[in-house]
This record gives sequence, C-alpha cells and structure tokens, in this order.
Amino acid sequence: MKNITIAGAGLVGSLVGVYLAKKGHKVHIVERRSDMRKEAISAGRSINLALSDRGLKGLAGAGIDQDILKVAIPMYGRMMHSISGEQTFQPYGIDNQAINSVSRRGINVALMDCAERLPNLTISFNQRVLDVELDSATLVVQDNESHKRTFIEADCIIGADGAFSAIRDKMQKNDRFNYSQSYIEHGYKELTIPPAPDGDFQLDKNALHIWPRKQYMLIGLPNLDGSFTCTLFFPFDGNPSFESLKTEAEISAFFNEEFPDVIPFMPTLLQDFAHNPTSSLVTVRSFPWAYKDKALLIGDAAHAIVPFFGQGMNAGFEDCTVLDECLDRYPDNWEKAFKEFEILRKPNTDAIAELALENFIEMRDKVADPVFLRRKKVERLMHTQFPDRFNSLYSMVTFSDMPYHDAQVTGRKQDVLIDAIMAIDNVENEWESVGNQERITRIMAGK
Amino acid sequence: MKNITIAGAGLVGSLVGVYLAKKGHKVHIVERRSDMRKEAISAGRSINLALSDRGLKGLAGAGIDQDILKVAIPMYGRMMHSISGEQTFQPYGIDNQAINSVSRRGINVALMDCAERLPNLTISFNQRVLDVELDSATLVVQDNESHKRTFIEADCIIGADGAFSAIRDKMQKNDRFNYSQSYIEHGYKELTIPPAPDGDFQLDKNALHIWPRKQYMLIGLPNLDGSFTCTLFFPFDGNPSFESLKTEAEISAFFNEEFPDVIPFMPTLLQDFAHNPTSSLVTVRSFPWAYKDKALLIGDAAHAIVPFFGQGMNAGFEDCTVLDECLDRYPDNWEKAFKEFEILRKPNTDAIAELALENFIEMRDKVADPVFLRRKKVERLMHTQFPDRFNSLYSMVTFSDMPYHDAQVTGRKQDVLIDAIMAIDNVENEWESVGNQERITRIMAGK
Repeated sequence: MKNITIAGAGLVGSLVGVYLAKKGHKVHIVERRSDMRKEAISAGRSINLALSDRGLKGLAGAGIDQDILKVAIPMYGRMMHSISGEQTFQPYGIDNQAINSVSRRGINVALMDCAERLPNLTISFNQRVLDVELDSATLVVQDNESHKRTFIEADCIIGADGAFSAIRDKMQKNDRFNYSQSYIEHGYKELTIPPAPDGDFQLDKNALHIWPRKQYMLIGLPNLDGSFTCTLFFPFDGNPSFESLKTEAEISAFFNEEFPDVIPFMPTLLQDFAHNPTSSLVTVRSFPWAYKDKALLIGDAAHAIVPFFGQGMNAGFEDCTVLDECLDRYPDNWEKAFKEFEILRKPNTDAIAELALENFIEMRDKVADPVFLRRKKVERLMHTQFPDRFNSLYSMVTFSDMPYHDAQVTGRKQDVLIDAIMAIDNVENEWESVGNQERITRIMAGK
Repeated sequence: MKNITIAGAGLVGSLVGVYLAKKGHKVHIVERRSDMRKEAISAGRSINLALSDRGLKGLAGAGIDQDILKVAIPMYGRMMHSISGEQTFQPYGIDNQAINSVSRRGINVALMDCAERLPNLTISFNQRVLDVELDSATLVVQDNESHKRTFIEADCIIGADGAFSAIRDKMQKNDRFNYSQSYIEHGYKELTIPPAPDGDFQLDKNALHIWPRKQYMLIGLPNLDGSFTCTLFFPFDGNPSFESLKTEAEISAFFNEEFPDVIPFMPTLLQDFAHNPTSSLVTVRSFPWAYKDKALLIGDAAHAIVPFFGQGMNAGFEDCTVLDECLDRYPDNWEKAFKEFEILRKPNTDAIAELALENFIEMRDKVADPVFLRRKKVERLMHTQFPDRFNSLYSMVTFSDMPYHDAQVTGRKQDVLIDAIMAIDNVENEWESVGNQERITRIMAGK
C-alpha cells in the first residue's frame, strides 16, 4: 500500500485516483481550482467533448461508463453546412457507431463523486502547487483562500495537472528531459446556439455539425438542454482573423458572408464574440514521464493535443487503463511499471498528436472536397467487403482500442490501397462489376 | 538613452553589452557566477572553441577581433585518425582558410575587460535571477554570498543567460510561446592530451583532430600551452556507452580497441574518464524572442545548438551584429527593432540547429567513408572552377556571413549538382578531360 498524491482533480486526475484507490492505495488529490460541484457554470470554455471507445473503456474501470452514456447524445456522423446552407451527412462508422457528446463538467462531477465515495481517497480543493520535490515525492501547496502552506509527503506523485502542469515544470529542469510546447496559428472562441423557444434542438441533434471554410471552421456539438456549443477555429492574425474582426459591423459582415445559415440560430452572436475569450491551441510533448518510482506524468500533463480528432480526453482515460495494467504486472516495482507505461504509451500519444494536427486540415478543408467524399465512399465499400482487413483510420482511432501508433501505420498502408482503387474510373458506383471486383481483389492481394 | 539589464556575462551577454553601451545606453550586466577573472580554471568543461568568420565579425564590433586572433591557433583542416593510427588531412577551405582554436575563458575575459572599460557599463557577479517581471522589465536577483535580494528596474531586459535561461523560463509561461528542449542520445566527456615533456604539441597543432568511429567519435583541439582538449562524444546508454564502461579495465580495453594511437598521449585517461563529468547535449528552440520592447532573448537563451558545426558561439556573436543593425534601423522603436531581429534571425538559427545535428553524423561516420572523401574532392574541384557559383556548405557556413538559411538552401541545391557530377565515372581524376568538362558545363547549366 502506497501513499499517493495526485496533482489535479480534472478528468484524468479523478479517474486515475479511482483506479489507484481501488487497488488499495491511499490517494490524496490536490486541485488548484475550487470544487466545481459548488460553483455556477463558467461560460466560454469547451463545455462539451466527444467521448468514444477508449474513453468509455477507461470509465468502465471506474464503473461509470453506463451512467455517463445515459446522459450523452450520440453523434452518428458529421453534418456539413455549405455556405449556401445545404446540409450533407457523412456517417462516422457503420451499424450506428457513434461518438458521444458529453458535458465536460458532467463527467468530471461524476468522476469526483465516484472518487470521493472510496474511503481511502480524499480531494483537497483550492490548493495551488508552489513547489515540487521529486526525490521525496513532496508537494508544497498553498490554499487559495487562507494562503496557508502545506507540505504533502507521499511515496509517489501523479502529475495529472494538465497542459500547464506544475509537476512537469519541475521535471523540465532535469537533465535530458525532452519537452516541447507548440502552438498552432489558430485560436478558438466558443459561441452558442440556444434551444428553440419550444425547448427543441434547432439543428439535427445526432450529428457533429461542421461549417468547413478551408482556412477556418465552425463546429457545433449538442447539449442535453437543447442547445449547441459552437466553436470557431480561426486564425489569430491575418485577414480574416480574430485580429482583423474588431467591430460589431465587421463580425456581422463576416458571419453573413461565411456562415449565413447559423445567424438566425445565434441571437447572442455579437455579445458572445465580444465577451468570450479567444483561447490558444497547444501540442505538448515530453519525455520521460516517470521519475524513478517517485513521480509520473499522465494525461495532458504528459501529452496535450489539439482537439481536432476528439481524442484528448479519450487518450487521457486510456492512459489510466494502461497504467492500471502496468501496475498489475509489476505490483512491487513501480519504477518498472512507470517505465513500461511510458514506453508503451509514448509512441501512441505521439501518433495521436500528429493525427490530431492533420485532422484539422481534413475537417476545415477536405470534408467539403468531392475527391475526399469519393474517398470516404470507397473506404466504406472496402470495409463492407473486407471487414476484417480494412477499417478506416477514423474508425480505428475512434471505435477501437488498437494502439494509436498501429492505427496510424495501418492507415498509411491503407491509403496506398485506396489510392490504387480510386484510380479505377467510377469504381464507387460500379463496385460490384466483375471487372472492378477483379481489380480490387488484385490490389488487395498486393499485385 | 535606455537603462538596460542584461542577464548573463557569458560570451554573448558581454558582447551585446559592449554593443549597447557603445550606442550610449546605460548597461548593467548581472551574472550568476563569480568573476572568472578572479578564479582558478575549472577543468572538465569545454575550454576551447572554434572561432570562425561570423564570430570574428561580431568581435570586430567590440574592436577585439585582432587581439583574439593573436592568441588563437589556426586549424586548416580535419586530421582523421583511423583505428590503425593512420592520419589523413582534409583541408576545410582553400588559400589557408582556417577555423581558430580559442580559449572560451580567454575570449570571455577579453570581452568582460572590454565591457568594463566602458564608463556606462557595469557587471555585477554572484547574482542569481529569482524572478522576472516582463512588463516592468524588472529582475529580482539574489546575491550568492550575502543572500541579499535586489530589485533591478530597467527599460528593457536582454536575456543572454544561456540554454537554461531564467528570462526564457518566464516567457515560456506566456500564451503562444513556442518552446522545445531536445536532447540527443549522446553525451560528452572531456579528456586531455598534455604537452610533450619538451612543451611541444604531441599532434599536429594546426588541425582539428577527429577519431571517427561511426556511432561515436573523439575530437581534439589545440591549446596555446601545447596541450589538446579532447572530447569523447559517446552514447549514454547501450553498448558501448557511458553506462556500459564502468571499470578501469573496461575503459582501458575500449580505448585500446578503438583509439589505440591516443593512449600514449593520454597519461591521465583513466582518472579523467572517472572524474570529469558526463554532460548532455541539447538543442533549444523558442519563439518569439521579444516581449514588446521590454525583453529580448539572444544567443543560447533563444537557440542553443549542438556543437558539431562549431557554430554555437559564432551564431551568438552574429546575433549581436544583427541586433546592432536592427537598433540602428529603428533607434526610436525598440519593439519594431526586436521584432525585425527575431524575424530575420529565427530561420537562420533554425537552419544552423539542423545543420549542427546533421554534421554529427558527418563527423563521426561519413568523414571516414571513401564516397564522402570523393565528394569533398569534387566539391573542391567545383569551387576552383566556378568560384563565384559554387562554394561548399561548410565554407558558406564557416567562411562567410551568408545567412545560415540561405547557406542551407544553396547547399541542398548544390548537392543535386554534385550527385550528377559524381555519377561521371572517375571524374575527380579526369576533371580536365574534354568530355568531362563538357558534361560538367552541361550539368552546371541545368541541362
């Protein structure tokens, strides 16, 4: 039995706390913010997320996956909005496979409730980490209200304190610690589509809505109350950009030009645009994540990614599953367990970081491109005909727990096959013809 | 006239201090270490460096380039040492072009002396930076001896405090600050070849000596006292590695096997190997370097590189030259001058960072390869025939002040030409033949 301090009671900190406490360890989670269960909802920061298979598997370990699914809204595909207002639906998978729009706050509250029901787990809120002593697994924290400082000694610190982790900050000073924080040229701003006067959804609730506009895009995810949380991903600088749209007139003109179909649904557009913060998007890479058996980074603290594959939370929850397995394998040697965890996990989190950056281009640009749509159609035909041998990259990432790196490598190999099949004229409409079937079989056999 | 605080009295901090004080500003340099002019020499850290054209140009601005050259040892080429002890000389340039082996301490002392002769410049030693307030250009420093803390307010802070810069640490917390620290798998350890009993050099003094051994290498640079400072670049882990060589017997056996010719020249090899530190090698990239007109990173604080192109100090001194020009261009708008500096300089320091990493492979592996030697011969023939149109990458980096990025791009284009010329059988020995000259002319014309 170990004494474990976890920095951060966010999504990953709460879940890894549940896993460790269930193993019998004494867990103390320290959280910088106040208890969100006692606070009003703060607007303007991503309040819903797409939960998919890896995340559900992680939540299953805490036994709350079914509870969460009950309050989730399945999104079966992308609904594309053209400038002229046409909507086109692209299914994500087959057989009603879906990603799930869930409230970040809802999941976090469920996880904290679940954590605090365990007798050997406590959460202390309003505790800001001032200093970290890795060798003695000691945190110095300060209470935001009383300003009292406390030394928290433990056998081990888990750094689940997010992209701007204080634990990682300390590790960054260690010799041979590799680290990068890399921002993209786009920021984001949240906007909202409220429910209709009768309380109903103003757009199809079972889709992730996208307004792809090449250099930028707007997306919308449904909430249980009938609203949609929309996010504009938009350049910081240049024209148009957050920098160039200053006045209400400029903002109005821009939305009228680019997103005319959402304007009737966004009565508070101008206020939201003016008052909601413009936030940046960072990819964080680090290595090693473990310091002896004394400290371990997990979730965004180890590998923050951009949101365009909807995998940030899912990857963090998968960390918890994998760490749980490593600790089962080496229950008496945490140094070895941590090392195995980081070696197993690093290539996979590097892969999803890359895929997430690439998917921004796909979402904002390619999804509206006829060649891309043809490709998606061919992918679906391939999967239907060769379900065991062909699965789209999106499906492997979203609807399986195949390691991300394997999915990335398999996806690249499949791209070569798809390129070859797409070279067959009109193949998507004459799939079953004898000649095409012969050609497809030959390509699949690598001839 | 501005009040300027410079963090760091190292090579770049001292030189940029001279430049700024000469412009009439009031300069205060704060340095964490004690005054090296009052201390005994510390062993085991790179004590000589290769000074080349860019560095000399930077020093010329302080008027001390000729003084430094007087105490430098010109190295006209590489002297390769094979396992069997054969030595092969490869000239670096033409017409006695040379890089200069100089003492790091010697240059730093000369720069500090030069700086302190200026009435409007002071250096405070033993001052550790505790905190940085960018908006007010304020440093909080603590004296290492008295532990007294001082607030130093200024109009502007120059962060010349090296690869582990405290100023950059603070900037790293700014939104959209891109940063990476990336270590290579190799570390280094310094060894020494003392002078012969008669005080003479034991190896050719006018060469940079290399013992290339594919996965690792030993190099040696001459010192004025007749000794050579040698550096073993060697993997941290694996076999062989710093990790695998533990006992004196293992170290002896390894040197007998791989570097038999140096053993007679290194009487203190085993003690040096045991007692000198094993140090790591990092590439640091960051951006932006400027914070308004309040703070600017320069030298290693902005862009630390690995030492394999001998350009770390030279790039830092070139920063000083370029910054000086930018401040001349916008004397009344330092925000603009800083912005121009970082935009001009960033692609070039990124280029030399890449070239330095690539040159490790060249030095430790390719220099002993017959194909590489043939390539070098063709490069020299090309340069002799087309001096205005063809210059080797090494020469452009080392013997010119062409921007590093332009040198990198030109080098890549030239590689294509060289590949084409090397495809001509035995061209290097039948360069003047009519047929070959026709072929070469055709290739140079892009036909």
